[in-house]
This record gives sequence, C-alpha cells and structure tokens, in this order.
Amino acid sequence: MRIKIINPNTTLEMTQTIDRAGRGVAREGTQIVTVSPEFGPASIESHYDEYLCAPGLIDEIRKGENENFDAYIIACFGDPALDACREITVKPVIGIAEAAMITASIISAQFSIVSLIPRTKAVTRELVMHYGFGHKLASIRSTTLHVLDVEQDPEGCIQTLREAAFLARDEDEAEAILLGCAGFADFADRLESELGIPVLDGVVCAVKLAEAMVELGKPTSKYLTYALPERKVYSGIFEKFGRAT
Amino acid sequence: MRIKIINPNTTLEMTQTIDRAGRGVAREGTQIVTVSPEFGPASIESHYDEYLCAPGLIDEIRKGENENFDAYIIACFGDPALDACREITVKPVIGIAEAAMITASIISAQFSIVSLIPRTKAVTRELVMHYGFGHKLASIRSTTLHVLDVEQDPEGCIQTLREAAFLARDEDEAEAILLGCAGFADFADRLESELGIPVLDGVVCAVKLAEAMVELGKPTSKYLTYALPERKVYSGIFEKFGRAT
Amino acid sequence: MRIKIINPNTTLEMTQTIDRAGRGVAREGTQIVTVSPEFGPASIESHYDEYLCAPGLIDEIRKGENENFDAYIIACFGDPALDACREITVKPVIGIAEAAMITASIISAQFSIVSLIPRTKAVTRELVMHYGFGHKLASIRSTTLHVLDVEQDPEGCIQTLREAAFLARDEDEAEAILLGCAGFADFADRLESELGIPVLDGVVCAVKLAEAMVELGKPTSKYLTYALPERKVYSGIFEKFGRAT
Amino acid sequence: MRIKIINPNTTLEMTQTIDRAGRGVAREGTQIVTVSPEFGPASIESHYDEYLCAPGLIDEIRKGENENFDAYIIACFGDPALDACREITVKPVIGIAEAAMITASIISAQFSIVSLIPRTKAVTRELVMHYGFGHKLASIRSTTLHVLDVEQDPEGCIQTLREAAFLARDEDEAEAILLGCAGFADFADRLESELGIPVLDGVVCAVKLAEAMVELGKPTSKYLTYALPERKVYSGIFEKFGRAT
Amino acid sequence: MRIKIINPNTTLEMTQTIDRAGRGVAREGTQIVTVSPEFGPASIESHYDEYLCAPGLIDEIRKGENENFDAYIIACFGDPALDACREITVKPVIGIAEAAMITASIISAQFSIVSLIPRTKAVTRELVMHYGFGHKLASIRSTTLHVLDVEQDPEGCIQTLREAAFLARDEDEAEAILLGCAGFADFADRLESELGIPVLDGVVCAVKLAEAMVELGKPTSKYLTYALPERKVYSGIFEKFGRAT
Amino acid sequence: MRIKIINPNTTLEMTQTIDRAGRGVAREGTQIVTVSPEFGPASIESHYDEYLCAPGLIDEIRKGENENFDAYIIACFGDPALDACREITVKPVIGIAEAAMITASIISAQFSIVSLIPRTKAVTRELVMHYGFGHKLASIRSTTLHVLDVEQDPEGCIQTLREAAFLARDEDEAEAILLGCAGFADFADRLESELGIPVLDGVVCAVKLAEAMVELGKPTSKYLTYALPERKVYSGIFEKFGRAT
Repeated sequence: MRIKIINPNTTLEMTQTIDRAGRGVAREGTQIVTVSPEFGPASIESHYDEYLCAPGLIDEIRKGENENFDAYIIACFGDPALDACREITVKPVIGIAEAAMITASIISAQFSIVSLIPRTKAVTRELVMHYGFGHKLASIRSTTLHVLDVEQDPEGCIQTLREAAFLARDEDEAEAILLGCAGFADFADRLESELGIPVLDGVVCAVKLAEAMVELGKPTSKYLTYALPERKVYSGIFEKFGRAT
Repeated sequence: MRIKIINPNTTLEMTQTIDRAGRGVAREGTQIVTVSPEFGPASIESHYDEYLCAPGLIDEIRKGENENFDAYIIACFGDPALDACREITVKPVIGIAEAAMITASIISAQFSIVSLIPRTKAVTRELVMHYGFGHKLASIRSTTLHVLDVEQDPEGCIQTLREAAFLARDEDEAEAILLGCAGFADFADRLESELGIPVLDGVVCAVKLAEAMVELGKPTSKYLTYALPERKVYSGIFEKFGRAT
Repeated sequence: MRIKIINPNTTLEMTQTIDRAGRGVAREGTQIVTVSPEFGPASIESHYDEYLCAPGLIDEIRKGENENFDAYIIACFGDPALDACREITVKPVIGIAEAAMITASIISAQFSIVSLIPRTKAVTRELVMHYGFGHKLASIRSTTLHVLDVEQDPEGCIQTLREAAFLARDEDEAEAILLGCAGFADFADRLESELGIPVLDGVVCAVKLAEAMVELGKPTSKYLTYALPERKVYSGIFEKFGRAT
Repeated sequence: MRIKIINPNTTLEMTQTIDRAGRGVAREGTQIVTVSPEFGPASIESHYDEYLCAPGLIDEIRKGENENFDAYIIACFGDPALDACREITVKPVIGIAEAAMITASIISAQFSIVSLIPRTKAVTRELVMHYGFGHKLASIRSTTLHVLDVEQDPEGCIQTLREAAFLARDEDEAEAILLGCAGFADFADRLESELGIPVLDGVVCAVKLAEAMVELGKPTSKYLTYALPERKVYSGIFEKFGRAT
Repeated sequence: MRIKIINPNTTLEMTQTIDRAGRGVAREGTQIVTVSPEFGPASIESHYDEYLCAPGLIDEIRKGENENFDAYIIACFGDPALDACREITVKPVIGIAEAAMITASIISAQFSIVSLIPRTKAVTRELVMHYGFGHKLASIRSTTLHVLDVEQDPEGCIQTLREAAFLARDEDEAEAILLGCAGFADFADRLESELGIPVLDGVVCAVKLAEAMVELGKPTSKYLTYALPERKVYSGIFEKFGRAT
Repeated sequence: MRIKIINPNTTLEMTQTIDRAGRGVAREGTQIVTVSPEFGPASIESHYDEYLCAPGLIDEIRKGENENFDAYIIACFGDPALDACREITVKPVIGIAEAAMITASIISAQFSIVSLIPRTKAVTRELVMHYGFGHKLASIRSTTLHVLDVEQDPEGCIQTLREAAFLARDEDEAEAILLGCAGFADFADRLESELGIPVLDGVVCAVKLAEAMVELGKPTSKYLTYALPERKVYSGIFEKFGRAT
C-alpha cells in the first residue's frame, strides 16, 4: 500500500517531521511518501494561506494519480481543500483534523484542541462544526505559537502547549487533547505521559485511518458532490488544471 | 491482534453471518472471535430489546478482559450500551453504526440508511444525531423487514433493501447507502454493484476501524466520562456485575 | 389513582426518601407505591450502572401492569430506560429529570442542574439535549458527591449542593435550580428558601405531572416508536422478558 | 383552586367552546373562569393579530391578580405574550401550545400539528423551536381553515382537519396529532377515535398542567428574565399599564 | 427617499438622539422622520414593555402608509413587532438589532453585544438566534444600565459600556461590539476609537440598509407569512386597527 | 465611490452580464468596475473549481488595493474565498450569495434557491448554514443547468429556472426566490413578474449592500480572524502573494 502525505506548506523541516510521524505508525507494507507542493506559503495560519496552499496541494493529488498511490493525507490541521481533493480521485483522501476528531470521538466523550495564534480559532471552530463534532468540543485553546516556531524553539513550543493542555483538562474538562498543527507531531507522546489523558496528533491518526480505508476497498462516491469535476478550460498559469491528469 | 465481535442478540445464524463478514476483511494476523451473549433477546427491534440485550453484551466485554482481546465491536446497528462498554475497558470499543457513519462521512457528502421496520426509525435518527452526522443524513428509509427475515428469506430481503436503496439514491440524493442491520452484511457488495454508489455494512467498517485503533495504541480516556465505574454492590441475578472482572 | 414510583437502584433508604417526597405532594386519592428492583446496582453513577439498572426497572413496569397502576415514575435523574418502559404500557411513564426540566421551563427562562461527581455531567448534558431544553440550560454544576453520600452525611451533602447552587445562580445566571439526584429530594425547600429562586426536586414534579397525565386520560401512542415490542424468544436468565406480562 | 383561562380573541362563541373544554377536564374543586379581553381582534391569524391581542390579554392577567386566581392559561395556539404574562405574576402561566407539546412529548416520539391557513405555519414552526421540540416535530399541516370557520361550519372544519391528520399520520409518521387552534377543542376525541393515535387539544392539556403546577406550589422565578417589570410611565390609552395592579 | 424611524418608546429625548444619529449618516436626498408612538411605555426593558409598545409602533407604520414613506426602521434593540410590521406594508421594515447584526456579520467573524440590565439578556439571546447569528455571537455583556440612564448620566453610561466592551474584546474575543440600545447611538464612535475594533450602533446601520433596500426596489413578499392581515373586527380601544389605513 | 466586482471565472460574457446588472442598480456617483481574474477556470461548478478560482480572485483584491476601490464584490454564488479576501483589506468585501440571503431575510420569512447541476447542492446548503440562514431555507432546487448554458441558450435556461421556481413556490412554500448563479442576473425581473414573489439576483443585492457599507464607513475588524495575514515566504508561481501589495 502506498500513501501520499501532502504537507500543504513549503517548509521542508515540517515535511520531515510529518514524514517521521507517519512512518512511525505505518504498518510494514505501507509505503509513506511525504511531499510539499511546488508552490505556495511557507506556513498556513490564515484563510489567505489556506486558499493559496490549495492549488499546490491539489496539484500533488493530481500527480499522485499517476504515481500509483492508494490513499492521500492532507497534513495541515485546517484540512484545506479536502472536498476538492475528494472530487479528483476515487482513492480515500483524509484530513488530519478529521482523523484526529474521529479518533477522539471513539476514545473520549469530549476533547479540546490546543492550537496556534488566536486568529486560527474561528477557522478551527468552523471545521469542528463542519465535521459534526461540536457537541464533543470542550474548548479550543489558542496560544502564542506560529507554525514555524516549532522548528526554531521546540522546547518553548512544548512548554506553551503543555500549559494550554493542562488548562483544557482541568478547566474545560477535556478528556483528550488534539494537537492543532501537523508540526506538533513529535510532542504527542511526551504530553500524553504528563497529562494522563490521550493526546492525539492528526498525522498518525490519519495514517491508520487511511490504511483502514484502503483495505476496506470502498471508493469515494462519484455520485453528485464528489463526482469528477466537469472538464473545462483553465487559463493562464492554471492552464494545466483544465487537462486530465 | 485479537478482536472480539459481539452480536448482542442470541440468534446464532446471525452471529455466523457477522463472523463471516468480519473475517472477510480482517488482515492476516487479526484474529476475529464472534459471540452472542449468554442471555437476552433473539433480535433487537425496540428500545425494550436494546436495554435487555445490554447486560449480556456488557458481560461479554467483561469476560473479554480476561481473554486477551485488543478491541471490541458491538455488532448491532443501534450500537447498544456503547458508552457503558467504553467505561469497563481501556481497549477501543466500536459500534457498527458509528463505524459505518464515519466511513460514509469520508467517502460521501451525504448518505442514507436503509433499515428495518418503521418503529426503529426514531432510534436510528437519534443515533445519527448523537454521533453528529445529522447534516450528512439524506434519509432513513425504513422497510417491512424484521431482523430474522434475513435468515428466512434472504432473496426477499435483498429485494426489499434494493427498492429502498434506489429510492434513497434517486429521490433523497444519497451518495452512499448504509445497511441498517448487522444481518444485512452479506448483501452489501451485490447492492453496491447494482446501485453504482458505495454500500456500507457496518461490520466490515468496524473491523477495519478497530484494527486501526489497536495499532494506533491510544487508550480510551479514563478521565471523567469513561472512567472505570465506581465499585459497588450489585444485587440479585446481577450480583457478579459488582465484582471486578 | 395508583402511581408506581420505581427507584432504579437497590438502596432502600433512598427508596424511602423518594417515597416520602412523593407522598408529600400527592393528592388525597392518589396512592403512591415506591419500590426498588429485585436486582441491580446500589446506586447509578455511570453508563454501566444505567444499563444494568434497566432490566430490574423494566421488570417493575411489567409487574405493575398486573397491579392496577395508572402511571409510572422512574426516580433516577438519568431517566434510564424511559423509552423502553413507554413501549410496554399505554399508561404514562415519566422520568424525574424530564419532569423537573418541564417544570423549570414553565417557571424560569433558564435553569442549572446541581449534580453528582463530574463523570455524570456528560450523560446529564445529553439528557438535556434529548428533551430539547439545551437552550434553557444555564449550566450543569457537578460536585464531589456520590449518590450514597446523601444517606451517610446529609448535612455535608446539602452544604456541597448549596455552594454549587449559589455559583449557578450568581455566575451562570440560573433562574431555577434542579437537583440532579432523586436522593436530594429532602433538600429542595431548604435550599429554595436560602437561594430565593425555585429549587426543583424531580420526584415531586413527576408526581404532579403523572396525576395530570392520568386525569387527562391520553394513552401513550402505540403507533411506531412506542408500539408494544415484537414478541420473541428471550434466552437464559432473561427468559421471562420474552413472555407476556 | 381558581384558574383563569383567557381566550385572547374577542369572539365569545370561541370563549364558550374553550370554557366547555376546560370545565370538561377540570377536577372537582377546580374553578374555571374563561374570558375574552375587553379590546382586540376577533380572531388571531397573523403576527399583526398576535401583537394586537396582547395588551387586552395582559390586561386580563393584571385584573386576575386582584381576583384571587391561582393560575392562568392563554388559550390561543400561538401562546401570544406568554413571557410578558409571566413577568407580572408569580402564579403559573401556561400557553396551550406549550401544554400540548409537553403532553405530546410524553406520549409520543414525534407529533404533527394540524392547523389554520398556510400563513400561520411560520409562526407555529418558530414556536415549536422556541420550546425546544423541533426534533419531535413530524410536520405542520396547514389547511384552508380560518379561525372563525369553526363556528360557522363545524362539520366542514372537522372534515378538513381529518384529511390533514390522516396525511400527517400516514405520510409524515406522526405518532400524535396536535390541534393548532383553541377553537378545535371539541373535535379531539372524535378525531382520535378515527385515527387511532392520540389527538391533543391544548386547552385540556393546559388545564391539567395548570392544576399540577398550582399544587406543586412553585412560583415563577422572579430572578432576571421574569422579574416584575420596572415601574415606569405609560402614556396615552395605555396609561393604566404603568400603574400597579 | 423618505424613511420613517419609529422609536417605540415615548421618551422624546431618546427620539431626538435617534433622529440625530439617523440624519448623521443619511445621504443627501434621504429624508429622515423620527417619531414616538402616541401611547405606550417610556422605555422598553422587559417582555411586558415590548408587547405594550407594539400597538403604538404598529399604529405609526399604519399612519406611515398614508405619509408617503419608502421604508421604516424600528429603533429599539429588541426589534419589537418586526414581523407584524412587515405584514402591513410592502415597504422594507428594518429592525436596528437586525441591521447591526447583519453589518457585524460582514466586518467581523464574531461579535459581542453590550447591553442593559441583566433581565434583557434572555430576550437578546433569543433575538440573535432568531436571526441565525448564534454562531457569530461571542457574548452578551449585560450591565447595570436602565434605558433612561443614558439621558440622565451620559458619562456614567459610557464608562459602564466601556468596561463591558473591553471585557468582551479581551475575554470573549469579540471582533466587533454592538450597542444594545438605541439610546447609546451617540457613544459608538468614541468607544470605537478607544477599543480599536468596530463599534456599531444599530440606528445608523439600519438607515444605510434601508436606503439600500429602497433603491433595490424589492417589495416585502406578500406570499404566505407577510401577507396583508385578514380584514376582521377589532373591538374596544383597538377598533381602528380593524379598519384599512 | 468605486466598487470592484470580481467575477471569479474567466468567461468574459458572464463578466459583462454581471457588469450590466451591477451598473443597472448602482447609484449615480458609484463607479462599477467588473473584472475576471488573469488565470483560473472558465466556470465554477465544483469544489475543485472553487479552490482554483480563489488565487486569481485574491489577486484581483490585492491589485484593487492600489486602484483606489472602496469595496469589493465576489460575483459567484458560492462566495469563494470570501474570508481570505476580508483578511487582506479593511474595505468591505461582500459575496453575492451572502447579499442575496441577507436581502431575502428582510423581505420574506423563507426562501428557496434555484441553482445549477445537482452536484452544487451540497456546497450551497453548507453556505446557507455558514451564514446562519438554515432556518429560513425552504429548499434548494437544483437543475440541469451548467454555468455556461446561460450564454449559449438563455431562453432554455430561463425556462428551466422558471419550472424550478414555480415548484419552489408551490411545493416548498418559498416566499422569495434566489438565483443561484451570477450568470442568471438578467432573468430576475422577468421571473419575478411571472411568479408574483420577489426574485433576487445576488449581484444587484451586493451592489446596494456595498454602497451602504461604504457610506457607513465601518472597516473590517482587524482584530483576530480578519487580521492581515502574517508576512511570510510564498514560493514558486505564487511568489508574489508573499509580498505586500
């Protein structure tokens, strides 16, 4: 089985962190390939970044269709362009926020998300509602962290997350903690041992879910919403998006 | 890996159907053990049946804790007593309705459930809401089928389901179909080939999800809601439920 | 008129407290009979306890059908197995949480529930949503109290409830307080005089509502959801549940 | 016990119908007094009518406070000005739509409302949501009926309601029917015997609920929302509304 | 273009404040006429006041239909009787709470309302839900202010609002502030410059929205809900409401 | 006042239709400039198209900031990338779906949307929920129409829309109709005269709303969600998106 994980930002250190997390839980026989898009933002922290990472991400799914992949993972906690990606392949496409929330819904009655700078809170809350897990959300605890702080000061980063996670557990009654950025993947186990409640990184959740979906063998429904996009002219620098993969 | 599937009714033909479905998708290395409770109803078609299947089902989870299982599956589309089962083990416990809805939410934008006699519709709708998938529900199409009709007249049963499923696809805009009874497991592939949209049996979805959860290695949170039940006296024929397993 | 109140746990001191509360508000001409099941848990504080109190509780409804009762009350704030009980009789069956919330909705714009140990909070919240009173819920204030603390230390118990109730009134803007355990019935009037806002015990609310329903003379609808359960084989220690009452 | 039922319109034939329905279910010892306001619309079929019946209705509650009443009932299925009425008395005030929905929620899993001309549908739907019973609403079936048709052509009226009620039961899966106008009170029993499912008139439901509330003895909370209105100047023809009762 | 603004209370100082605010943003060519009803409460702070201001307010709309107005604004943050007013004219009728929330939804992701005494909070929250902006509501911050405090102590009033608004911004993450009373119109700009986030007075929002609606030229739909009220007899002091305008 | 309308697809005939509609309602003194992006899809009918039109659309907003515009309108009924656009300017940015729904909410109690091919229905429904108008949605009536059918067969197109709109009015009780594609702008008046209920094209609604917002003078809140995006490196063909405008 071949799974393509796409880190939708262009920061290669983060791509490596994600790759390491993915490989760490993949089964023998699962081949993980982790990439960044050829163009786009160095990190994703706003709607602006989300919409501008999408074409590069979509491009990687399109290329993946010629590379014999069995499933795709979008490794950014905003699950950008997930619905668009599902339209262009019958293979399962899984977002790491979606995977983390599904997992949390199985092992806890309510969960909190510890995340980045406060501006991301609104988009995260909307994502939770979109998936239907609003009634299981104890809180979103935003912090002072930017995405790229993870690479520059991992110890400071984990300390900030630790404080937010303890508040989520003790004040918000979170029974599990979700890490709100793919770059936090390395911190999950350490925080879990300190907190005494499950701490979930979406990358590892998504890899396991993707393996399950591939083996289940059910295609993405091509009836209505996720049907292949209508063939049409794309102009300018996006001309290739109008062609078949 | 050892997964215990519990058919919460006492009809052994259905237990065999479920076992066959579970084994059919289990990976090499996954051992499936499917059982029925020692006491309880022959089929589950009412709240009455749901509450009265629960103790026997819980009993099987309790026994399972001494039998070296890694995960449990509740193989009735009402997911009876799921929260109670999660309290008495740290191993993942998965309901087949939950598993089918999670799977459907990944491969379709909205789904329908084709199910049993009309009285079950209210409980199914409440279950969909409980998991948070109300906004993805195209319809619940109830039928004239009782649970045990499956064993007695499989061809009549699949014909009834087929009619309901086509209506769900064509009138309700369902992009995937969920089979609303564990006993329907054998019919999924045949209906899918006829309908041209994914048809999901919850048993196979649950087996793949259980394997994923076991490999992920995250315990059920024992903080708050799913903590071990308080030790206390149970009296009468339930005396053993007050003892440790 | 004869009303059967079922305390779904097997602690007779609590059954007596409930009986006293029920008789205290019953009209002349209303005969209150309060019982505990023959088997089950000494107290109900988890989903595990809820599911395991249900058969004994259902058994008491079934027996009640031969004892000439006009209505039934389930005297545990989780309203366990209420839907199942409604299936097996045309007489009104009322849960004390349901009765307390209905009453609160008539005399206040929003209410709080002061309750037991924190693990019960999730099930209480889900109950509130199930009845449709989510928009009227100011807060659920859990405490350190176990069910059986009421019998062992009533003064400590009322002090704990008092603190929670004042916080609910002053910080959460509760306009009425609901006592989240049938065992708290004796404390309502004392707390109300201290707080200056209505304090509702579900048992007395349920008795008055049951009397009203009996006199109204409307049966439980036997169409669809609450139809009599299908007759079928029950095996093992539950064999009798398959027979007519 | 003295209960004042206020028919908020000024059509005395309807006031008599309501009075008859109320007396029919009142207990010995309950004195029913049914009145119409001194000013206002002959029937209530629009928001315009609702807002313009309110002052006359409020006036009757104010007068009632000097007439030794124990409870008040607002006998129009829109429950006009209910919150305002609750502010000016500590006695229970009950709307007939509220009472009918509460009753239906106890004896059925979902209900339909058969009502007046289509324009009233939006206000009825909003009322259902306001009380929190949206998840129990099978449908609202509007008809061609105006309020005053009841007095002029009762047989034509019941025939129209019958057709709507059968459709609600058979197509919408209603397990109980609510009559969406106080003027329909006489038709409930006849329709119920034909339909085979409970048919509820709000007036009788409200009388029983009011009796229960009076005996329960809990005042309307005067904390926050339902506190007595601030004393202030009212000018012009409403000058008296600024004085104490 | 002629816009009639109706201050539904009878306090002329407030009518002048509202008029000044309205004229301040009206375009050249827009004629603003601001009035109070001929009868009703001096201020609106309860459901009682809301229902009793409605007839005088409706009367002003009715008179307006003979005065050649193009649009109407209801200048009380509770938007009293808005639906009734829409029934009696095809001209746009806009509530200031509605206008403020629509505006806030365009320039911020979530907003808070700083308002009057705590008892008004429940009605404000219900209004937010009614318009569908519940998911955009950061908080409602009630204060100690009565409506008429604005005229008597404007500096004390603005200080109280300032404190509430800073808490809304800093603790509730409000991205915009709505002033919860028409009498606060003068304070918006000063608070906005201090807070650094948009502060919206509903009166000015409503004037701009009304101008836009008039120029758009779309009538209020007279199909179903907002159809002209049925012609019928109104009796007593409301006799004129039964006649055509 | 200068308003930039961006048709996010690259079909110039549609840009001209939109421009004509916009100019038709703009006030004297309002300068309308309508453009298409330099790159992207010829029409927008899928999530794929939505995400791939976004960068070109965002590019037009960025350019607009140097072109002295006072407001921006996104002229596609999916309101693509609206939140992203609000981050990069303090000027009001309005989506045509948002503007149409706001307008409909003022002049009708519930509305229907007549739209394109069925696959777009899910995204439209999610948009309605996102804005909070779910309780005002009578139905979404999809059709067989592709976006570019409007240019090729306008008469066939209006006939298809007419049929859908009559069904929405007569079967779904829609009190107003929204045209679910910017390309339908020319058809609104003709359909309205036939249907007898308001028919709204989002382009004209958005122009009037934009004018109102500009004159109101309130900036988009730069606190939290809509703050300017963090400055960061954008790579590859998107390199310019990382620079200030």
